Amino acid sequence: MIYFSSDYIKGCHPRIWQAMEKSLPEARPGYGEDPICREAAAMICAEIKAPEAAVHFLIGGTQTNLLAVMAFLRPHEGALCAASGHIHVHESGAIEGTGHKVLPLPSKDGKITAEQIDGVMRAHRDDPTREHTVKPGMIYLSNTTELGTVYRKAELEAISQVARSWGLPIYMDGARLASALAAPEQDLQLADLPRLLDAFSIGGTKNGLLFGEALVLVNKAAQKDFRYIQKQRGAMLAKGWLLGVQYRELFSGGLYQEIGRWENELAQKIATGLTEAGCRFALPAESNQLFVILTKAQIAALEKDFVFEVQATMRDCFSDKLAENEEVVRFCTSFATSGEDVEKLLSAVRSRP
Amino acid sequence: MIYFSSDYIKGCHPRIWQAMEKSLPEARPGYGEDPICREAAAMICAEIKAPEAAVHFLIGGTQTNLLAVMAFLRPHEGALCAASGHIHVHESGAIEGTGHKVLPLPSKDGKITAEQIDGVMRAHRDDPTREHTVKPGMIYLSNTTELGTVYRKAELEAISQVARSWGLPIYMDGARLASALAAPEQDLQLADLPRLLDAFSIGGTKNGLLFGEALVLVNKAAQKDFRYIQKQRGAMLAKGWLLGVQYRELFSGGLYQEIGRWENELAQKIATGLTEAGCRFALPAESNQLFVILTKAQIAALEKDFVFEVQATMRDCFSDKLAENEEVVRFCTSFATSGEDVEKLLSAVRSRP
Amino acid sequence: MIYFSSDYIKGCHPRIWQAMEKSLPEARPGYGEDPICREAAAMICAEIKAPEAAVHFLIGGTQTNLLAVMAFLRPHEGALCAASGHIHVHESGAIEGTGHKVLPLPSKDGKITAEQIDGVMRAHRDDPTREHTVKPGMIYLSNTTELGTVYRKAELEAISQVARSWGLPIYMDGARLASALAAPEQDLQLADLPRLLDAFSIGGTKNGLLFGEALVLVNKAAQKDFRYIQKQRGAMLAKGWLLGVQYRELFSGGLYQEIGRWENELAQKIATGLTEAGCRFALPAESNQLFVILTKAQIAALEKDFVFEVQATMRDCFSDKLAENEEVVRFCTSFATSGEDVEKLLSAVRSRP
Amino acid sequence: MIYFSSDYIKGCHPRIWQAMEKSLPEARPGYGEDPICREAAAMICAEIKAPEAAVHFLIGGTQTNLLAVMAFLRPHEGALCAASGHIHVHESGAIEGTGHKVLPLPSKDGKITAEQIDGVMRAHRDDPTREHTVKPGMIYLSNTTELGTVYRKAELEAISQVARSWGLPIYMDGARLASALAAPEQDLQLADLPRLLDAFSIGGTKNGLLFGEALVLVNKAAQKDFRYIQKQRGAMLAKGWLLGVQYRELFSGGLYQEIGRWENELAQKIATGLTEAGCRFALPAESNQLFVILTKAQIAALEKDFVFEVQATMRDCFSDKLAENEEVVRFCTSFATSGEDVEKLLSAVRSRP
Repeated sequence: MIYFSSDYIKGCHPRIWQAMEKSLPEARPGYGEDPICREAAAMICAEIKAPEAAVHFLIGGTQTNLLAVMAFLRPHEGALCAASGHIHVHESGAIEGTGHKVLPLPSKDGKITAEQIDGVMRAHRDDPTREHTVKPGMIYLSNTTELGTVYRKAELEAISQVARSWGLPIYMDGARLASALAAPEQDLQLADLPRLLDAFSIGGTKNGLLFGEALVLVNKAAQKDFRYIQKQRGAMLAKGWLLGVQYRELFSGGLYQEIGRWENELAQKIATGLTEAGCRFALPAESNQLFVILTKAQIAALEKDFVFEVQATMRDCFSDKLAENEEVVRFCTSFATSGEDVEKLLSAVRSRP
Repeated sequence: MIYFSSDYIKGCHPRIWQAMEKSLPEARPGYGEDPICREAAAMICAEIKAPEAAVHFLIGGTQTNLLAVMAFLRPHEGALCAASGHIHVHESGAIEGTGHKVLPLPSKDGKITAEQIDGVMRAHRDDPTREHTVKPGMIYLSNTTELGTVYRKAELEAISQVARSWGLPIYMDGARLASALAAPEQDLQLADLPRLLDAFSIGGTKNGLLFGEALVLVNKAAQKDFRYIQKQRGAMLAKGWLLGVQYRELFSGGLYQEIGRWENELAQKIATGLTEAGCRFALPAESNQLFVILTKAQIAALEKDFVFEVQATMRDCFSDKLAENEEVVRFCTSFATSGEDVEKLLSAVRSRP
Repeated sequence: MIYFSSDYIKGCHPRIWQAMEKSLPEARPGYGEDPICREAAAMICAEIKAPEAAVHFLIGGTQTNLLAVMAFLRPHEGALCAASGHIHVHESGAIEGTGHKVLPLPSKDGKITAEQIDGVMRAHRDDPTREHTVKPGMIYLSNTTELGTVYRKAELEAISQVARSWGLPIYMDGARLASALAAPEQDLQLADLPRLLDAFSIGGTKNGLLFGEALVLVNKAAQKDFRYIQKQRGAMLAKGWLLGVQYRELFSGGLYQEIGRWENELAQKIATGLTEAGCRFALPAESNQLFVILTKAQIAALEKDFVFEVQATMRDCFSDKLAENEEVVRFCTSFATSGEDVEKLLSAVRSRP
Repeated sequence: MIYFSSDYIKGCHPRIWQAMEKSLPEARPGYGEDPICREAAAMICAEIKAPEAAVHFLIGGTQTNLLAVMAFLRPHEGALCAASGHIHVHESGAIEGTGHKVLPLPSKDGKITAEQIDGVMRAHRDDPTREHTVKPGMIYLSNTTELGTVYRKAELEAISQVARSWGLPIYMDGARLASALAAPEQDLQLADLPRLLDAFSIGGTKNGLLFGEALVLVNKAAQKDFRYIQKQRGAMLAKGWLLGVQYRELFSGGLYQEIGRWENELAQKIATGLTEAGCRFALPAESNQLFVILTKAQIAALEKDFVFEVQATMRDCFSDKLAENEEVVRFCTSFATSGEDVEKLLSAVRSRP
């Protein structure tokens, strides 16, 4: 079988494994207080040109998101996000589990806009019963979004300006940030983020690490005492240097960007090939997640040799684009996808149009 | 000014006040462990024909709702409700504050249906990633709904049957239950509820009491240790007999039903009068809350002598029914509304059509 | 029976009842947004000489305490208090229910000292594993304490100085503050509190009101958005003016202080009489709560005509003072206690020494 | 430097690393739903002779503890534990962060007894104000304890019997269970645990794994929907098979027990050597954690070549055993400790008595 089911289905990039192996023999202080974590954090600060940012190495995405929300919100505040936002639909109520309501905004493509945010904030301010509702207290963005789309720099600048005018901190879930930054249509750099955001994560799990998410806290208030909160939620790895080792390697010699580009190039090949083969896309093909419309017959044929996700729960969102016998399917590339895998997929599609 | 702004704008029914006054001189045990609370609870059990129900006297509606949810849910579960449900839109995230997500279902009239619930539960069961989503763990209904509509017995029976097939407890927010039971179109009795529901509240604040909500727990599992949870959330009144005294009076000689009928009769007079005057209704006029469409000119004229709510936040829901110069307005009757108040409103409307 | 069991066993002071009665007929905006609440808040601000304090009217003591803690703490912080503190032992885990650990300090008399606080903060600062422990984030004091003792001004000044040096806000639970301020041994005024504390409550339930606690927030950060949190926890009374009416009356013509003095004078009579009759006290007799050591025979005899609490759970704390056949007993005076009640108690004790 | 500072200071046992390496190339389903996790779980069920137990693979100890507590408790319940319990003192309020109070019991050696539990439960039952206190809802034991002591089978049997009589589930934190089971003084087997406990963890992080804790849920009610709670708290590793691979290896050919024995044998050698060198122990030397009393001069001398913890916060507990110039010091052995390390430590102590 060839896997296009997700970007976290295989271990890790060989360089990451070798780095971990080399780190094994030495004894080190636990809980992230070792020199390697400090070094990795400093490398990230240098890369993002934000020497005063605080970088914390965490284990998984849901954990990172819930800690980011806890770092920002007071008890009565909620997090604005796209209705397709991971924190709203795919984290088993992790945010509500911290006491905060997720405040979804309608979105066709997984992105939200400065205008939407401004509109919500104006409506909240003008609502005479606002104290009976949840106060929007921060903005959650994901980039790439859960729908594979990518924010442009201008979009983020507009959001950032509106957010600051309302005093709303912005957190970007960067589980797939490497792919977002490698998207050809866009113009964002890692080093732009500290200026535009209050916090963001640099995802490792879906970008070639064995596991790991780096949470970058730019906002000083959120930085304060973060490690207490991290420990309280069981998010402080005892052998914390395992995260530092991986991130140090990821930010050595551009491996982070290289994997993002690799994923995207293969995804673009798939997108081009499928388009040529007559397939339609449910969503713009901008990153390493492709949402393609296939017939049930095509799906059944492909499932013999390929693993991928049929997005049954997306049916409603795209009902206007789908015929009765069609479904939305996700193909996802990863550090472990090969050009050969892509070729096989494309020839399979071509052979059964 | 004449008030149609809500049903909690004046103190209480004279009989309630007198009963409280009579209770003043005597010393009593605190925290609801007095004979009057026991007597009042027994009267309610008799009225609802459920001798094994547990009745707890609480202070307000949000408090009652959040305690009911806490009594039923495990940490990963959420509460299904209409998108207009009070717990979703008007309680400042009280349910999320207990760690649970509210799971809104679309609804035009504030009610949800057995079919919707069944559909959600099937979709959840069939979702291979369901463990990454919030598990629906109970159903929240309000009756009357926040939109002034009323469940019919057959609707509740269908919901009850579906809910039981999925093992979902049902809680009904009865802040305005007296008005619901007095609605002429419907056929429900208080004594039907224990058979159909796992818990419900019998609202006092909006039905002639100074303050108070009676929470009826039919479900044995939810009954267990409820008073600990009540105390933990600061919901145990020190001089608890004040609630017992009010409910004992409310359930003496049918005062509870009498107030509900009074509110509805006056509301029906308004509805008839407004219809005759050519007004349209945004929602069916079934209870003591009427949602009427008026022009901005009418509103401005009426505001000189009457107090009522312009439902600005409802604009979006009813945009298809509203002209540019129109708004949805709520008129609400209460125990303190008089026939004369209604006459004055109607003649005011008639005089400025 | 004559009641010395607590200070919340009877309705309310006649002036409070009359004030409520007078407020009944008029319609008013709900949720504490009425002119009477504003007036009552202004009267309290004037009394405490803190024009910029925010005063919120709440219903009960546990509710007030948990909201105060929520207003101050971030998720990883805990509240320092005496081991006998109400939030630690008698609120069913209300503070933990908001996610925060209570951090008890040993205390013989219910008070904590500046030295203790300073010691804990130094130890925390110097603990290399402090991020694995709960960070003390505020101080909870009660005055009078749960053991009937009273803070002196100098004690509070020392605590205040230490607290500020560590950036720790102080909240004082004033459920029995009127009795504390009326204690003859002490020198504190209401108007001293805003200078010394970040927040405090002015208890009504135990000082002649039907129900009600006024939470005074001096600290600006805690003031922000408090009403959202209040609503979220179900602590916003629909007919909120009922609280305003009671507090307006309580702060008219010195009724608040008058009731405190009345309680204490009667308590002092009891203390003097019991001492003359040869009784020993487990704790200093400073306020309206007296903790007396009686023999089981005395207790049995008194229980025929009087109601009071045998403090079984205090046995361990005072085991060094108690003979086998003795117990600690609490006598509590209230606005409703009469001089005659006290005389009867004393003669009963004298007649069975 | 030679490290006796903890048992999680080095990577992992070579067999674990090799097993992980072998697992790298293959693609697998995420989130613990892969065949290796199933296989590892089955091996553990076989080892503990509990075919119906549910085994979940988690990442760290605090995470495991908080999830276990969430699986058992209703909102008003707390967890009984020794005052030295990890959940009480070293998890940054993780349990309170889930809304539950930790209920510490006094303990000199880190263990609690059946008698203590029974006493607490009787006192709670007999307390007329019990609804104002936190209800004990489960028992937390750690084995080995935080003080390096080990429960005997008879002690656990007594606790189990008492716990069941009160309906209290028992959870054992087995972060160092391998060392406990290898203690020569005791007679417990892994396969005894399902009979005695409702849940327990089989720690990996401190027993030769890179990371990982296996949570064994014997109790059916706690098993239900556990994975939802796991996901909600960010405790579901995306590449979950990494945990399965490690546990499969750990339970192949007795590696789990072998590492426990290794740690204990070296610790016993240290204990014997130190005793012969005239050192006193603050606590019984039963497991891989040794709490030794050394003079400050000895400590300063040893610190040149060895890393270990001076237990400053333990000073108060052992003040009766310590001279002014003495401290309690912890030596901890691990899978990576060598016999040579031990020899060097002992000769260093002998040379500077």
